[in-house]
Amino acid sequence: MLNKFIYLDHAAATPIDDDVLAAMQPYFSDNFFNPSSPYAPAVMVRRAYEEAKHQLAIAIGGQPTEIVITAGATESINLIINSVPGHIVTSEIEHHAILDTVKYRQGTLVKPDAKGRISPKKIEEAIRPDTQLVSIALANHELGTIQPIRDIAAIIKKVRMDRLAGGNTTPIYLHTDASQGAGQIELNVSRLGVDAMTLNAGKVYGPKQIGLLWFDRKLRLKPIVHGGGQENGLRSGTENVAGTIGFSVALKKAQAKRKEEAYRVTQLRNHMQKAIEKQIPDVIVSGDQKHRLPGHLHVSFAGIDAERLIFLLEAKGVLVATGSACAANSGTRSHVLEAIGLEPKVADGSLRITLGRLSNEENCKKASDLICEAVRLEKQRIAKLRNK
Amino acid sequence: MLNKFIYLDHAAATPIDDDVLAAMQPYFSDNFFNPSSPYAPAVMVRRAYEEAKHQLAIAIGGQPTEIVITAGATESINLIINSVPGHIVTSEIEHHAILDTVKYRQGTLVKPDAKGRISPKKIEEAIRPDTQLVSIALANHELGTIQPIRDIAAIIKKVRMDRLAGGNTTPIYLHTDASQGAGQIELNVSRLGVDAMTLNAGKVYGPKQIGLLWFDRKLRLKPIVHGGGQENGLRSGTENVAGTIGFSVALKKAQAKRKEEAYRVTQLRNHMQKAIEKQIPDVIVSGDQKHRLPGHLHVSFAGIDAERLIFLLEAKGVLVATGSACAANSGTRSHVLEAIGLEPKVADGSLRITLGRLSNEENCKKASDLICEAVRLEKQRIAKLRNK
Repeated sequence: MLNKFIYLDHAAATPIDDDVLAAMQPYFSDNFFNPSSPYAPAVMVRRAYEEAKHQLAIAIGGQPTEIVITAGATESINLIINSVPGHIVTSEIEHHAILDTVKYRQGTLVKPDAKGRISPKKIEEAIRPDTQLVSIALANHELGTIQPIRDIAAIIKKVRMDRLAGGNTTPIYLHTDASQGAGQIELNVSRLGVDAMTLNAGKVYGPKQIGLLWFDRKLRLKPIVHGGGQENGLRSGTENVAGTIGFSVALKKAQAKRKEEAYRVTQLRNHMQKAIEKQIPDVIVSGDQKHRLPGHLHVSFAGIDAERLIFLLEAKGVLVATGSACAANSGTRSHVLEAIGLEPKVADGSLRITLGRLSNEENCKKASDLICEAVRLEKQRIAKLRNK
Repeated sequence: MLNKFIYLDHAAATPIDDDVLAAMQPYFSDNFFNPSSPYAPAVMVRRAYEEAKHQLAIAIGGQPTEIVITAGATESINLIINSVPGHIVTSEIEHHAILDTVKYRQGTLVKPDAKGRISPKKIEEAIRPDTQLVSIALANHELGTIQPIRDIAAIIKKVRMDRLAGGNTTPIYLHTDASQGAGQIELNVSRLGVDAMTLNAGKVYGPKQIGLLWFDRKLRLKPIVHGGGQENGLRSGTENVAGTIGFSVALKKAQAKRKEEAYRVTQLRNHMQKAIEKQIPDVIVSGDQKHRLPGHLHVSFAGIDAERLIFLLEAKGVLVATGSACAANSGTRSHVLEAIGLEPKVADGSLRITLGRLSNEENCKKASDLICEAVRLEKQRIAKLRNK
């Protein structure tokens, strides 16, 4: 199936890597034991599970005891937000998993700049004396804009010091959803300076329905799922052994290949961007060109209906998205593009092109040409309609 | 690995069926697309996912729109309990997933009889004017006792009528966790008369980390995970396509083979029970012998340490449990055995033997002999210690 298409939607989903699937297979049928059972074969399964958590911890520079395995990024985000009761500062361009969770709480949404970057200064201004959590994605899921997380972490540190000095004992934490950055940019929790981090296996060529929340030990998580007491009581339910092992192999491999792959994908993306800019001079490229994920390319063709483009391109074998693949987004305009101030007629003509392991020089070149051809055809069709 | 052991812990975990794994495989790598993406290959994935939910609905006599796919029984239970704000009636012998969730709420725990059966009359007595949920597992996870869910449903119906007549508009619902009964006894939601039902794929030779909550349309669920709006907004996060397809194939197969397999396993279990009763006349068999899951056999050997038995048996290749495989249970006495009034020295000598597809005449016969041999050896060892 994969060879029939040019897949340019790596930000929505990635196929499971062969090594990952091979590592998971023994845990489907042979080593199927419940890791909480007392006999040796189950204890071996428990050990394999703990070892996988250990590997995940190493990949992000944390401790295995600071990791909760979840069903994915959305659950991780819900878990951290559930754990911190106070006021939240986040941004207008976060994923729905953040925005829909913050809805039920007191929160301030910071406005990004036109490139989709969040200014640490604006975060500082939004922090109130009762703010307990700042949550900013490491990279935006639509634009690919990489956020200045380290600088935001420095602000949080300063606020903490000021509170200490002023006798305000309210704690404040920084959470980042790094789902979109994993395998592409730095993920070390200490170097980023965050207190909690969300990751998703499905974005790094691992299995779907598995993610993690890393949290600093000073944070006391409040579980959203109670029961058997697995994951140190932080998330009950029989452990996802195969999934966690798959996740660990996927993340390890993605991190090991990270620099090389980032370079390769950046080159491909830049070539695509140049090719499109050359053929369609009025294309609008959004996002921060200095601070952008290697595989992300967000282009808008004013006056064109992106949904039509997608179906025209699909007929030619090119798979590309308008925005993030999310049920809540269907049929509505992207809140991200609205927040960065794109005019509706520009926003409605936007494609999110995301490259990854299935991308190569040949299929990216072909895709650029097919995208430009589709845009030209649509422009001609619209011009004809106007002249009628 | 499986041939090296005699596995008698089917209630804790089951290996993934070959047909199930074969049905899942294409969705790991080839059809990996995000079901919320707009292009045709993703739409095909969406259709396969919806079809799997349809099959799950058929297997339990419900509608696909009344099903939320979750990460397993524990999450399903948390979801239903989160959705019903009022007083809860449940029993002392429920799984930790129920008891630990009810802890945070107003609830009444009904006492079972000595066979672990919950009397509908006691449920009726425990229902208060503000009771909104009754939750009783279809079959107990330790004893295998099958509960009179239909009779309890009749009580609920009566309470509903009485409330209507008396002007009390508080709704009342019946939820059953059918994880332990699936593939062994009737699961039709209409015939059972329940308003919500929890199921777990990992207990019916399906993948782990996937379950469902079926709910009657009159029930308004309150999600515990917010975000992208998947599952009609009831459980956000990218859908577990491979897992749901695996679950549907597993449940369909388990239901199709149900009667035949229940008969086969009942015969094997009864032979084991007879063999053990013959060799160890003072064995205590717990649970309701009339209303018991086909594969369940709960035996106690007073004065013997079950943990030691388990390790002795493991050395002979027999894998068996003391109680449910659950992190919270480790090292503590079973709350189920306490509730049915087993004396501590009897409870501490208990084995939960659960048969299933890996059981056959030969390995069950061998296991009975090995269990009896281990018990005899332990009795001798203890007698020697006493005589010293």
